Amino acid sequence: MSILLKNVSLDNQITDVFISENKFKKIAPNQNVNADKVIDCSHFAILPAFYNCHSHAPMSIFRGISDDKNLFDWLNNDIWPREAKLTDEMIYTATKFSIMEMIKTGTVFFSDMYFGMQPLLKAVADMGVRAALSFGACDLFNSDKCKVEIEKINDFLGTQNPNSELIQKVLAIHAVYTVSPELIEFNVNLAKEHNMRLHIHACETKKEVDDCIAKYGLTPIAFFDKHNALSDKTTLAHSVWLDDNDIKILADKGVWLCTNPSSNFKLCSGMFMLQKLLDSGCNITLGTDGMASNNELSMLSEMKLCALAAKIQSQNPTAGSDEDVFKIATANGAKSFGIDAGEIKEGKLADCILVNLYNHFLVPNYNLISNMVYSADSSAIDTVICNGKILMQNHHIDGEEELTDEMKNLSNLFR
Amino acid sequence: MSILLKNVSLDNQITDVFISENKFKKIAPNQNVNADKVIDCSHFAILPAFYNCHSHAPMSIFRGISDDKNLFDWLNNDIWPREAKLTDEMIYTATKFSIMEMIKTGTVFFSDMYFGMQPLLKAVADMGVRAALSFGACDLFNSDKCKVEIEKINDFLGTQNPNSELIQKVLAIHAVYTVSPELIEFNVNLAKEHNMRLHIHACETKKEVDDCIAKYGLTPIAFFDKHNALSDKTTLAHSVWLDDNDIKILADKGVWLCTNPSSNFKLCSGMFMLQKLLDSGCNITLGTDGMASNNELSMLSEMKLCALAAKIQSQNPTAGSDEDVFKIATANGAKSFGIDAGEIKEGKLADCILVNLYNHFLVPNYNLISNMVYSADSSAIDTVICNGKILMQNHHIDGEEELTDEMKNLSNLFR
Repeated sequence: MSILLKNVSLDNQITDVFISENKFKKIAPNQNVNADKVIDCSHFAILPAFYNCHSHAPMSIFRGISDDKNLFDWLNNDIWPREAKLTDEMIYTATKFSIMEMIKTGTVFFSDMYFGMQPLLKAVADMGVRAALSFGACDLFNSDKCKVEIEKINDFLGTQNPNSELIQKVLAIHAVYTVSPELIEFNVNLAKEHNMRLHIHACETKKEVDDCIAKYGLTPIAFFDKHNALSDKTTLAHSVWLDDNDIKILADKGVWLCTNPSSNFKLCSGMFMLQKLLDSGCNITLGTDGMASNNELSMLSEMKLCALAAKIQSQNPTAGSDEDVFKIATANGAKSFGIDAGEIKEGKLADCILVNLYNHFLVPNYNLISNMVYSADSSAIDTVICNGKILMQNHHIDGEEELTDEMKNLSNLFR
Repeated sequence: MSILLKNVSLDNQITDVFISENKFKKIAPNQNVNADKVIDCSHFAILPAFYNCHSHAPMSIFRGISDDKNLFDWLNNDIWPREAKLTDEMIYTATKFSIMEMIKTGTVFFSDMYFGMQPLLKAVADMGVRAALSFGACDLFNSDKCKVEIEKINDFLGTQNPNSELIQKVLAIHAVYTVSPELIEFNVNLAKEHNMRLHIHACETKKEVDDCIAKYGLTPIAFFDKHNALSDKTTLAHSVWLDDNDIKILADKGVWLCTNPSSNFKLCSGMFMLQKLLDSGCNITLGTDGMASNNELSMLSEMKLCALAAKIQSQNPTAGSDEDVFKIATANGAKSFGIDAGEIKEGKLADCILVNLYNHFLVPNYNLISNMVYSADSSAIDTVICNGKILMQNHHIDGEEELTDEMKNLSNLFR
C-alpha cells in the first residue's frame, strides 16, 4: 500500500508526501510516482498525530454516569460496582468505541491500564491503531491476591498479541497504595527480563504522597526508585505532587511523566508543574486518562488545558507554550514508547493527520501549532493515517455507525 | 415562518416542538400542524442555545498572532499596534467570522465591548444572531480624551440599530484603571436615562484591585457601587479578585458576574470562585472573552473549563456541577440581558440547538447535560435556531465558504 499526499502544507511550504508501506518514503514537491492512492491535499496541512500516554479505554461505557463527586463516593458507589459487571464483550465494544473517538480527534496511539486484556488486544487490532497495553494488577497488600494477580500477569504475557507491529505489552504497577512491594518487585524483574516498559500511577494526590511517607518513610518516587522501577522505559501517570528531590531523580533517570490535566482538575487532585519540570529537564507526555474522569478522549482539549493549567500553576503566562505542549502530545509521546514517529520526516513511521485549513478554527493561520493547541476541535481533522494506513478520511471511519449503535445498546445495560 | 421539529428528544422524552414566528408555540407529541418547514429530529435532542456574555468579536483577526506572553508585552507590542490598523471593513468581516464560529458551537447571543460600532452592528444584523453591543470608551484620565469619548458614545447612541428586535445597545465602562470617574458617571447617568445595561471589566487581576485601593481607598466593586454603577442591569466581566464585602454587595444588588476561564488562565489573571459565589447568591454568566486571549469562541470548551476550574479553585470536586454550569451558559446568560429565552418552554423565544445523539461525544447518554459540559465539541451540534430562524442546519451556515475566504485574505494583511 502506498499513498501520495499531493500539495499538502508542511511547515507552511506546499509539498508532496509519499508514504510507502508504513513509512514516509519521500517528502518533496511535484513528485511523479505511482501510488495506490492519491489524495488532493490542497486544502490540508499535514501534522504529526497524537499519542495518548495514559488512558483506561474501556471506561467509555461509564461516560457521564457519575460526575461532580468526591473521589471515594465516586469510586465506591458509582464506578467499582459497575466495573465488576463488565464482560469481555463490553470491554471489547467500549474499547473500540474509545478508539473511534481517539481517531476522530487525531490520536493513533494510546497507553492503557485496565483488565480484560484479551478483548482489549482484539479491539486495538481490529481498529488498526497503535497501543501499549498493561494489566492493572492490584493485590491490595494481600498475599493470596498477590499470587492470583501474578497468575493473571503471566496469563496476559502468554496471550497471543494479534498485531505485534502496532501493539506492545507493558507491565503495570497500579499505584503505591494498591500494590505490595512483592508485586512491585515481580513486575520490575519481569520488565527487566523481557525488556518491557512499566506504566505506573504515581503522585496523583497529596494523600497518596503523605500516606506513602507515613508508611515507608519515602515519597512514592523515592520508593519506586528504591525498587528499581524508574528508568526511561517507565511512564508515571499524573505526577502532580513532587518535591525537588523527586524531580532530580526523575530528570536523572529520564523517566516519562504523563500529565492528565482534565482528570486532575475534575477529581481535584492538583495541578501539574509543567514548566518547572520542563526546566528541570524532565521528560513529559500527555494523556486523557479514562472517560469516567475526563469525560472525553480528545488530545486537542487536553493540550489546551495542559497549556492553560501550566500558566495558572506557575503564575507565569509564558509557561506551557504551544510549541512545547504540541511536542509533548506528539513526538514525546511516540518516543516514550519507543515508536519511531511523531514527526513528519522521511524515514519516520507514517503516522499523521491532515487538518482542513478552511476549518474556521484554523483561520486565521498565523501559527498552526497555536491553532491546534488553543482553538481546534475534531471538526478541523479530516484524515488520520497510522502506520501508513488510512483510519479516517473526510471525517469518516469505516463501521462507525454500527459501532455507535452497539455502544448505545450496551450502555442501556448500565442505566 | 413556522418550523415543526418532529420527534425530538426533550428531557429524555420524544415530542414535537412547533415554532411559530419567533417563539416556541406548542410542545407536545404527535402534532398535526401545517409548518413552513418540518425537520425530522429522530436523531436529535433539543437544548437551549448558548449566550456568550463577554467577548470582543472583531479580535478573531488576531487569533494565534501572539500567545504565551506577559500581559504588558502582549498588549503593547502585539495587540494595540495592530488594533490601531483595523478598518471598518476588517471589523465587519472579523465580526461576521466570529459570529460564524459562535453559531458553529451553538451560540446565538453575545455581549461585546469594542470600537467600530457601525460595522459591528451591521455584522450582527447580517448574521441574524442576538447581541448586546457596547463601545469600550477609555479616556485614560485625560479630560480632553474624555470629551472625545463622550462624543463617540453619543455617536454610537445615534447610530441606527439595524435590528432592534435582536440587538441592544449597552453602555460600557472599560475598567477602573482606564476610565475617569467623570466618564464613569456620564455612562451611569446615560444608562439610567435610557434604561440601558452596563458592561464593565472588573477585578480581572490582583494588580487592578491593589491599584484601585491605593488610588481610591476602595476595591473596584466598592468604587463602582459608590458611583451607582452596580445593579441587576450590570454585567461585570472576569470578577476574579473579590473580597467578602464585594461579594455581599454583588449578591445584594443582583449584579451579573460573567466568568471567562480560558482568558483568565491564559493571561494568568487567576481563578474565578464559582462555587463560593453561587453559594453566596450571586448571579453568574459565562463568556469566552476575545479570540486573542482564548483563542476560540466555543461555549462548549468554556463550560468544561468553567466546571473544572471551579473544582480546583475550591479544592472541592462537587463544585461547579454540570447542571449549574449549563444553566450559567444558557438561561442565566439570556436573563442577564433581559432576553426571554434560554429554556425550551412554550411561550419562550425560539432559541435552541439540535444535537446529534449519534455523535460519539454524546454516547453513552446517561446524562446529556454532563455530555454537553464535559465531552461535546462542535461536531455534536447539527442545527442552530435563533428567534425562530434557522442559522445552521446539517453543520452548514449559508455563506460560510465565502466568509472564510474573506477572513483568510484579510489576515494576510497582518502577517
